[in-house]
Amino acid sequence: MRHLLVIGIGAGDPDQLTIEAVKALGRLDLAILVEKGDEKRELTDLRRHMLREYAPRARVVTVSDPERDRTARAYPNAVDQWRRQRGEAFRDLIRDELRENQIGGFLVWGDPALFDSTIGSLEEIDGVDFSYAVIPGISSVSALAARHRIGLNRVGRAVQITTGRRLAAHGIPDGVDDLVVMLDARNAYQQIDDDVDIYWGAYLGTPDEILVRGKLTDTKDDIDGVRAAARTRKGWIMDTYLLRRRDQ
Amino acid sequence: MRHLLVIGIGAGDPDQLTIEAVKALGRLDLAILVEKGDEKRELTDLRRHMLREYAPRARVVTVSDPERDRTARAYPNAVDQWRRQRGEAFRDLIRDELRENQIGGFLVWGDPALFDSTIGSLEEIDGVDFSYAVIPGISSVSALAARHRIGLNRVGRAVQITTGRRLAAHGIPDGVDDLVVMLDARNAYQQIDDDVDIYWGAYLGTPDEILVRGKLTDTKDDIDGVRAAARTRKGWIMDTYLLRRRDQ
Ligand SMILES: C[S@@+](CC[C@H](N)C(=O)[O-])C[C@H]1O[C@@H](n2cnc3c(N)ncnc32)[C@H](O)[C@@H]1O
Ligand SMILES: C[S@@+](CC[C@H](N)C(=O)[O-])C[C@H]1O[C@@H](n2cnc3c(N)ncnc32)[C@H](O)[C@@H]1O
Repeated sequence: MRHLLVIGIGAGDPDQLTIEAVKALGRLDLAILVEKGDEKRELTDLRRHMLREYAPRARVVTVSDPERDRTARAYPNAVDQWRRQRGEAFRDLIRDELRENQIGGFLVWGDPALFDSTIGSLEEIDGVDFSYAVIPGISSVSALAARHRIGLNRVGRAVQITTGRRLAAHGIPDGVDDLVVMLDARNAYQQIDDDVDIYWGAYLGTPDEILVRGKLTDTKDDIDGVRAAARTRKGWIMDTYLLRRRDQ
Repeated sequence: MRHLLVIGIGAGDPDQLTIEAVKALGRLDLAILVEKGDEKRELTDLRRHMLREYAPRARVVTVSDPERDRTARAYPNAVDQWRRQRGEAFRDLIRDELRENQIGGFLVWGDPALFDSTIGSLEEIDGVDFSYAVIPGISSVSALAARHRIGLNRVGRAVQITTGRRLAAHGIPDGVDDLVVMLDARNAYQQIDDDVDIYWGAYLGTPDEILVRGKLTDTKDDIDGVRAAARTRKGWIMDTYLLRRRDQ
């Protein structure tokens, strides 16, 4: 049977690879790189660098990510459809590029369990037999906390991980004191007036890493500025932040 | 100046160490093991094994964790006091055991950012000068998701990470569709009647790993049984689970 590995590769620093991930890379016959358009060429380059280093035997194929309809209303259905298309692309690839008893691997950014659709796409596949396993990776959330040297939760309390879209729509949910926000394309923190601190990080783990922290109301304009400048300079941005209610 | 590293070592499998953690271990002059009483001797043994393998130069000191008052009402204050005591123990240790320009390291279970008090204790220390850095690790949450081959969140939705104590007190919060529960000493899932699936894992990453999944109402008694049997056999249990609302 064909075997696939979904390998979490960490969120930017190649040294965030686990030993388990390094061993997995070394076993690959085929490495599958999902390309998301040219703005993130650096991210593909990092994966290629890891492959040269740790997967010298692997043949590399790239599959380009089908475009996704990102308009707000269409969101859940668009994702389903896009995942189905991606499942079909993966199926063809597995069938055509991987022989029986070979091992193929997806190099997944961060931890495959957080806001990543690789597992969901694999679950959609039918028409080809394969088994698969998942190797956890350091998420950008863990990287953010480590670089700011903070816990994600406070003692005995909960932490929630959400999207910029949800933060913009719902604010900080009642009862949530610590909220991590990912995938915020539109500076959703700007609209938040709660008494919170922000711990913000961009390009975590890479040479371009930027960290900013402070009381949100005092800091949000600075972050807007840093964010806009970084986006102009690099052409894209990848950032995550924690909003933490200040204790009364 | 003295330098400390708070090193996330993963949640049970030594291959969950990152390259960054391995490099950090190799730099240690002093390794600090916090011992929590004999029920978890296996966990200390795993750390010792890592030290032999990756930190051959390091002198090892153990510090025993001050007992904590775990009664429900006392909880937040008890934790503060306990953390202060622990900070004092750490301060003495750093002052007495680490020379200027030496590097000391704490080997922290899972990811130091999740339900771990090492960073909080270091922040309490005064009376000795040191700098410190945090190295993220694979948390038991990431390990749980990987072993069940699931995402923690569903597309465009949030995930919350909480404690058994909070689940028992508040149930599954409104608006939360995916809830990870840690530190559940009292089978809090038993009291939940919502229409959810459970993805449960114990001793993740270790040879004793157990995974159970299913509709909660159909599965909770099984999990009780598995849990009780495992606890009897090993003398302690370490488990984590995800509760996931079923889509209507
Ligand atoms: C599609 S999600 C993938 C998350 C990934 N699976 C993980 O575990 O980090 C992409 C989002 O992750 C966050 N992200 C990923 N890498 C990051 C990095 N190096 N620095 C800051 N944020 C990052 C950003 O919020 C970005 O919008
Ligand atoms: C004090 S917290 C430390 C969590 C740790 N920092 C982490 O990132 O996983 C201990 C709790 O973590 C969870 N846990 C840690 N290791 C685990 C493992 N190998 N399997 C299952 N649960 C684990 C359990 O819920 C346990 O009660």
